[in-house]
Amino acid sequence: MKHLFSKKAYLRHKRLLSLKTKNMDLFEKHKDILTQAIHALHERTFFAAYPEHPSPKIYGETADEEGRKKFQASVGKKFEELKQIGETNWIGSEESPYMQDKLGIAYPSFTVESLVENAQTAFHQWRKVSADERAGLLIESLEGMKARFFEIAYATMHTTGQGYMMAFQASGPHAADRALEAVASGYEELTRFPQKAKWDKPMGKYNIVLDKQWRAVPKGISVVIGCSTFPTWNSVPGIYASLITGNPVIVKPHPGGVLPIAIVVAEIQKILAANGYDANICQLAVDTFEKTNTKELAENADVKLIDFTGNSQFGSYLESLDNKTVFTEKTGVNSVILDSTEDIDKVAGNLAFSVTLYSGQMCTAPQNFYIPESGISTPSGNVSFDEFAQKLVDNINSLVDNPKAGPFVLGTIQNPTTCDRIEKSSKLGGKVWLESRAIENPMFKDARISTPTVVELSSKDKDKFSSELFGPIALLIKTKDTDESIELAQEMAINHGAISCGAYTTDPNVKEKIADEMALAATPVSFNLIGGIYMNQNAGFSDFHVTGGNPAGNASFTNPEYVVKRFTWVGHREPVSV
Amino acid sequence: MKHLFSKKAYLRHKRLLSLKTKNMDLFEKHKDILTQAIHALHERTFFAAYPEHPSPKIYGETADEEGRKKFQASVGKKFEELKQIGETNWIGSEESPYMQDKLGIAYPSFTVESLVENAQTAFHQWRKVSADERAGLLIESLEGMKARFFEIAYATMHTTGQGYMMAFQASGPHAADRALEAVASGYEELTRFPQKAKWDKPMGKYNIVLDKQWRAVPKGISVVIGCSTFPTWNSVPGIYASLITGNPVIVKPHPGGVLPIAIVVAEIQKILAANGYDANICQLAVDTFEKTNTKELAENADVKLIDFTGNSQFGSYLESLDNKTVFTEKTGVNSVILDSTEDIDKVAGNLAFSVTLYSGQMCTAPQNFYIPESGISTPSGNVSFDEFAQKLVDNINSLVDNPKAGPFVLGTIQNPTTCDRIEKSSKLGGKVWLESRAIENPMFKDARISTPTVVELSSKDKDKFSSELFGPIALLIKTKDTDESIELAQEMAINHGAISCGAYTTDPNVKEKIADEMALAATPVSFNLIGGIYMNQNAGFSDFHVTGGNPAGNASFTNPEYVVKRFTWVGHREPVSV
Repeated sequence: MKHLFSKKAYLRHKRLLSLKTKNMDLFEKHKDILTQAIHALHERTFFAAYPEHPSPKIYGETADEEGRKKFQASVGKKFEELKQIGETNWIGSEESPYMQDKLGIAYPSFTVESLVENAQTAFHQWRKVSADERAGLLIESLEGMKARFFEIAYATMHTTGQGYMMAFQASGPHAADRALEAVASGYEELTRFPQKAKWDKPMGKYNIVLDKQWRAVPKGISVVIGCSTFPTWNSVPGIYASLITGNPVIVKPHPGGVLPIAIVVAEIQKILAANGYDANICQLAVDTFEKTNTKELAENADVKLIDFTGNSQFGSYLESLDNKTVFTEKTGVNSVILDSTEDIDKVAGNLAFSVTLYSGQMCTAPQNFYIPESGISTPSGNVSFDEFAQKLVDNINSLVDNPKAGPFVLGTIQNPTTCDRIEKSSKLGGKVWLESRAIENPMFKDARISTPTVVELSSKDKDKFSSELFGPIALLIKTKDTDESIELAQEMAINHGAISCGAYTTDPNVKEKIADEMALAATPVSFNLIGGIYMNQNAGFSDFHVTGGNPAGNASFTNPEYVVKRFTWVGHREPVSV
Repeated sequence: MKHLFSKKAYLRHKRLLSLKTKNMDLFEKHKDILTQAIHALHERTFFAAYPEHPSPKIYGETADEEGRKKFQASVGKKFEELKQIGETNWIGSEESPYMQDKLGIAYPSFTVESLVENAQTAFHQWRKVSADERAGLLIESLEGMKARFFEIAYATMHTTGQGYMMAFQASGPHAADRALEAVASGYEELTRFPQKAKWDKPMGKYNIVLDKQWRAVPKGISVVIGCSTFPTWNSVPGIYASLITGNPVIVKPHPGGVLPIAIVVAEIQKILAANGYDANICQLAVDTFEKTNTKELAENADVKLIDFTGNSQFGSYLESLDNKTVFTEKTGVNSVILDSTEDIDKVAGNLAFSVTLYSGQMCTAPQNFYIPESGISTPSGNVSFDEFAQKLVDNINSLVDNPKAGPFVLGTIQNPTTCDRIEKSSKLGGKVWLESRAIENPMFKDARISTPTVVELSSKDKDKFSSELFGPIALLIKTKDTDESIELAQEMAINHGAISCGAYTTDPNVKEKIADEMALAATPVSFNLIGGIYMNQNAGFSDFHVTGGNPAGNASFTNPEYVVKRFTWVGHREPVSV
C-alpha cells in the first residue's frame, strides 16, 4: 500500500499510527485505576487515588518547596502555559487575601466568538475519540496535575484565602479524586450499552435480523463556570464529566480565582497536544470583574452544557436558559439539629471546628443550630441552651486563640463583602454570644481575618435565619422542641436549599425521623460526629455532593444523572446482509 | 408480646405480616423475568416478555371473543372498576372512529385538589415500600394487563382507530414490554448503589469509620398525560417508571382515548389493594374536551414529575414550568433519504407500507422523502424522481386497494382535523401524485378513512415541509443531491425534531455520513429496510424511543436518564459505635 502515499502523507500516517498506539497505551497505563474507581463508586467504601497528606515521603522531599517557588515565580508575570492562540489582551485581577495585594498575574483573553469557534472545531475531533482513549488521556492529565499539587496549593491559598492544609487537600488530591470520579462515572455510562448487537427476532416461519449500533453522541460545547472559594474542587467534576463524554470545554474561572484552575487546564492542554489532539478541546476563558464574559458565553446558541458554582440568583438565571443542560451548585442554609448526646463537650468541640474551618466559607458549613428551649439531653441531665451556647463559644475561642491552630484553621476571608456580612449579623437583634474579631497570622501580617461570630435567635425570627449568611456566622436558634427543630431544618432545605445537615441524637426514633424528613428535603445528614471528622467534609467515591433535590443546586457529584445528561444515545439499524 | 395487642390490632398485625410475605412472594414470582429484562436492556438483542401474536395457542381459544364481549359490554355504561372514591361526576367523551359514534362510557371524575391530596397520602406509604416489593407488585399488574390484552385491543381500536393487529400489539404486549422495560431500568438504578456501607478511612495512627446509608428518595407526585393515538403504549413507560421509583401517579388520559388506559389503571389498583396498599398510589383523572384539568394538574405545586405525549406547543409549555421534572414526547418531522439501492421496488413497497400503516398517525411515520434530482442509483441505472414517485404511488394503491390488507393496515383517522390537514396538503402547490380518498371497511361502514396522499415539492419549499403534517401525507422533495438531502434531514431534526429517519444507500461512505450527521441531530436511522420491518417500528429492550436530543422530545424510552431523574440519592452517615 506504500505506493499510495506521498512521502509526506506517509510520514503523517506513520505519526498518527504511533500516536494512536500511544493513546491506547495511556488507556492501558491507567486501566487499573479506572477499574478501581468504577468499583469504588459502587462500593462507596473509602477510596482515594491521590494521597491527601502533603507528606515528603509521598510527594518527595523537595516537592513543597519547589511548588512554593513555582507559585512565587508566577506572581507578577504572564501565564504563558496555555496552548491557545489569538489572544486579544492579557488580563488578571487576582488578589491574595493573605497579603491583601494584587498577584499581578496576566492571562491571555479571547473573544467569546473565537472561543466558541475553536471549541466547535475541537468538538468534531474529540467526539470521535473512543471512550478508552479519552479516559487514558484524562487520567494522564490528572497525573500532570498531581505533579503540581503543591504549586496549586499555594495558588489556592493566595486566591481563595484557604489555610495551607485545606488548599493542598481540596484543590489537589480531593479535586483530582472528584475529577477521576467523574471520569469513572462517565466511562461507565458510555460503556454501559453495547456499541453493536445483532437483533434477531423470530417471526414464526422466518427471522428478522438487524445489525444495530449505538452511539453516545456528546451534546456539544460545555462551559464550566468556577467560584472564588474552591476554584479547582468545584470545577474539575464538570470539566472532566464533559470531557469524558466527548464535549469540548470552555473553563470560565472566577476572576478572583484563576491560577489554580489555569494550571489544571494547562496540564490538560499539554497532554492533548502531546498526543496529537487539538488543545482547544479544553480552553480557558479568563475575564475581569469589570468586564465579565459569563452571560455572553452562557447564552451563545452553540453552548449546550453549563456547569456553575456560585450564588443562587445567577444559578437560577442559568437554569432558566432555553435549550441548555445546566448543572448548578448554588447556596443553601445548612442546619444542625441538637437533641441529645452522650458527650456534649465533644459535640461543642466538633461544631466549633466546623464553624471555624476556612472561616465558614464552605458550602457545607453549618449555619443554623436548632436547640430546644428545654436544652439538650445528656446522661448527666439536660444541658441548657445557654450552657451549650457558652460551650460552643469557649471551644471556638480556644481554637481561634491557639496560635498553632487558629490562623491555619481559619485561613482568611476571600471576599471583603463577607466581612461586612459578619458585622451586620451582630445587628440581627439577637444576643451576640461571640463577636467576630481579627487575630494575627504569624506569617502574613496583612491577612484578612475575621473569627466566627455566634448570635442567638428565636424560632420566631424566621426572616432572619432563612437565607445563607456566607462566612463564619453561627446562629443559635431556640426552638420549642426537637420536632420544631426538624421542621425548621426541613423547611429551610426545601425552600432555600441545603447541602449538609448535622444532627445529634441518642434516640433511634428521633434519628429515623430526622433521617426521613431530611431525606425528603434531599439533604444528607451527618449524625453524631465528634472527633476528627466534620459535617463540612464530603468524600469522593462515597458522599454524593449536593443531591440535586433541593434549591441548593440541581446537580450532584457524581451521580449517574451528572454524566448521562451530557450525551445522547442514538441507535442506527440495518438488515443483516444475506 | 401478644398481650400488647388488642385483639383487633393483633389481627391487623397478623394480616399485615401475611401481606408482607405475600408481597415478597410476588418479587420471588417475577424475579426471573425482572432479571431477564435487565439483562435484555444491556444486551439489546431481541427480547419480549409478552408474545405479540394474538394467537389462540398463546392466549387461549376464547380470549379474543371474550375480550371483544367485555369491550362491547362496557359501551354505554359506567366504568366502575376503579377503587377511587369521592367522585364529583361521571363523564366521558370517547367516540369510535370506526362507527363515528359516541362510546358513551362514563368515568368517575375528581377535583384536582382531591386527586393531589390522595396522591400525597399514598406517597408516604409507597415511598417506604422496597424496590423488590414494588417490582413484584408492578410486574404482577402487567400479568393482570396481559389477561385483558384482547379487551384492551378492542378498546384501542374504538378510541384510536387503529387496525386490530396494531391495536392488539401496540396497546397490549408491546406496551407491557415497554412498561416492564421501565420497571427493569428503574429497579436497576435503585439497586445500583448500596443501601449501606462501612466507610473506613486510614488516618495514619487511627482510622475514621463511618456507617453510611443511602436512600433513593422519590421526587413526589407524578402526572402522566396521555395522547389519543397510543393511549397505553405512550403512557405506561412513564407510569411504571414513576411507580417503580416510589412516586404516586395520577394518570390523565386524552379525553378521546380513556378506556385502554383505564383498564390498565384498574389492574394496577386491583393488585395494590389486594396486597394491602392504598389504591390511590395510581389514580385515573379523566376530563373532557370542554373542561380539561391538565394545566391545573401540571401547575399544582405538589406535582413534581410530568410525563407528556402530544403536541409541541403544550409540551414546551410543560417543559417551561418551574420546579418540575418533565419528560416529553412531542412532534417531529421524520425524513427518508433516498440515495441508492439494490432493489428499488422493494424500497417503494416498504415505504408505501410505512406511509399507510395506521394512516401515518405514528410518531415514527415518514413524512419528508428526499430524492436527488438525478434520481436514485440502482444496479440497472438511475431511477428518476418521477419513476420513483410513480412506484411509491403504485405500491400505496395496491396496498390500499387490496381488500384483505388495505382497511386493516390503514385503520381509521382518529381525529377529524387530520382529514382537513390531508385536504390542505393537496393545496401546498406541488404536484399531487396521489390524492387521498375514502375506501370502505367491510366491517365498519361508517369508518373514518382517508388513504395516503403523495405531494411533490422542491428543496426550495422549506416553508412547506418544515412542520409535522400529522396523518397519511408523504412529501417527495426534489434535492440537488444526497448531500442536500442529508443537510435537510439534519436541519429538520435539529430545528423541528425527529423521532425516526429512513435511509437507502449502498455506498458505505454515504452511509457513515448519514449515520454521523443524523446522530448529531439525535435521530436514529433505519438503513435499507425492505420486507417485513419498517422504520415506524421501535422495539422495547433494544431501540431507544425518542432520544431526548432534539425538539421532538426531551425523554427516551428507556434510557437511564428516564428513571434516574425520578428520584434523588441522599446519603446519611454516622461514626461506627465503639
